[in-house]
Amino acid sequence: MLLKNTNLIKRMFITLEGIEGSGKSTLIKNLNNYLSNLDIDVLFTREPGATNTGKNIRNLLLSPDTDLSSEAELLLIMADRVEHIKNIITPNLNLNKLVVSDRYIDSTIAYQGGGRKINVKLIKSLIKSLKMPVPDLTFLIDVTVETGLSRAKDRAELDRFEVEEMDFHERVRRAYLKIAEQEPERVIKINGNQDEVAVFNDVKHFLEMKLTDNE
Amino acid sequence: MLLKNTNLIKRMFITLEGIEGSGKSTLIKNLNNYLSNLDIDVLFTREPGATNTGKNIRNLLLSPDTDLSSEAELLLIMADRVEHIKNIITPNLNLNKLVVSDRYIDSTIAYQGGGRKINVKLIKSLIKSLKMPVPDLTFLIDVTVETGLSRAKDRAELDRFEVEEMDFHERVRRAYLKIAEQEPERVIKINGNQDEVAVFNDVKHFLEMKLTDNE
Repeated sequence: MLLKNTNLIKRMFITLEGIEGSGKSTLIKNLNNYLSNLDIDVLFTREPGATNTGKNIRNLLLSPDTDLSSEAELLLIMADRVEHIKNIITPNLNLNKLVVSDRYIDSTIAYQGGGRKINVKLIKSLIKSLKMPVPDLTFLIDVTVETGLSRAKDRAELDRFEVEEMDFHERVRRAYLKIAEQEPERVIKINGNQDEVAVFNDVKHFLEMKLTDNE
Repeated sequence: MLLKNTNLIKRMFITLEGIEGSGKSTLIKNLNNYLSNLDIDVLFTREPGATNTGKNIRNLLLSPDTDLSSEAELLLIMADRVEHIKNIITPNLNLNKLVVSDRYIDSTIAYQGGGRKINVKLIKSLIKSLKMPVPDLTFLIDVTVETGLSRAKDRAELDRFEVEEMDFHERVRRAYLKIAEQEPERVIKINGNQDEVAVFNDVKHFLEMKLTDNE
């Protein structure tokens, strides 16, 4: 066990990214067990919909009944994130917690940039203008679209993103892979086609390196 | 009567602006009577909340129960506007209608820029990036904050903006007056402290000049 003195772990912001059915929820369950046993003060959160206002925005965003242009979708997601940062992410980092968010800025570049084809420069300039904090570490759980969608389809109801066609999800995946190429220091690509134990062990390996770096 | 051949009036986008209680609703009623008699094909619309998605956003924005940071408020208003432009303003202009909107981009500069103190450069760059059309003509109905608020307070329930303190509304008014100074060709300042007939006659005077210009 690498991690003994967990008091030294401070103020780290980790995000989890991936297409539909990449296995983020299962990974979060495994991470939660692992970090709780280590007695690390961790907060798990997610986008969209972590705040009260965000829950209303999430309903608008995910309901298949919502008729929404790509740009309006982008602005609603950004509004949700502004609330998320202000009310949850920043206050918890300031308490020196480890904050783990299921989706964050890379989702916007992948889904609204890659998927919806909005100019990525516009998205990045918005992220910068709104002074959104950059994660310390991001795990991209990469699965093929076939694998991801076959897992997502086992769920009860599909949301506005899940009902998109294959090509949309292929663009999202490619945009994610591009981010991982462009920012290898921050973004760790994990093979999500493996079983959940292998995925978790890969994540744990990088996480322990990062947490030890910080000591 | 200046206006005879109304077939010549095409594709004009007019916006009405002003602080709470400036008398826009009364002016719209008078404009509607006047333009209907002239047989001009006019569409009256408003922000926020003209579209289905916009109605949900409007509820979030105006409910005094909503806890919202200034930046999230800005993004929600922009999302509402993107839907408004796409679904109502542009299609009706393309039908060569006269489109009159109660509030538009200047409200954002006045309320979120002046009132909430968000950097006006950020707001203007967003408006530009999202390619929001500039109105052909804007009437700023200018009243003192005392007059405006005393009128607004006669209404049944106050919204999230109306409950703001005097100083907020003073900043909104000053921001509006600055826009009128900076863009005198587009923005016509009307003295809204006059009675409704005088306000309407002033507006009609400039409107007829503009409609005749276009012939």
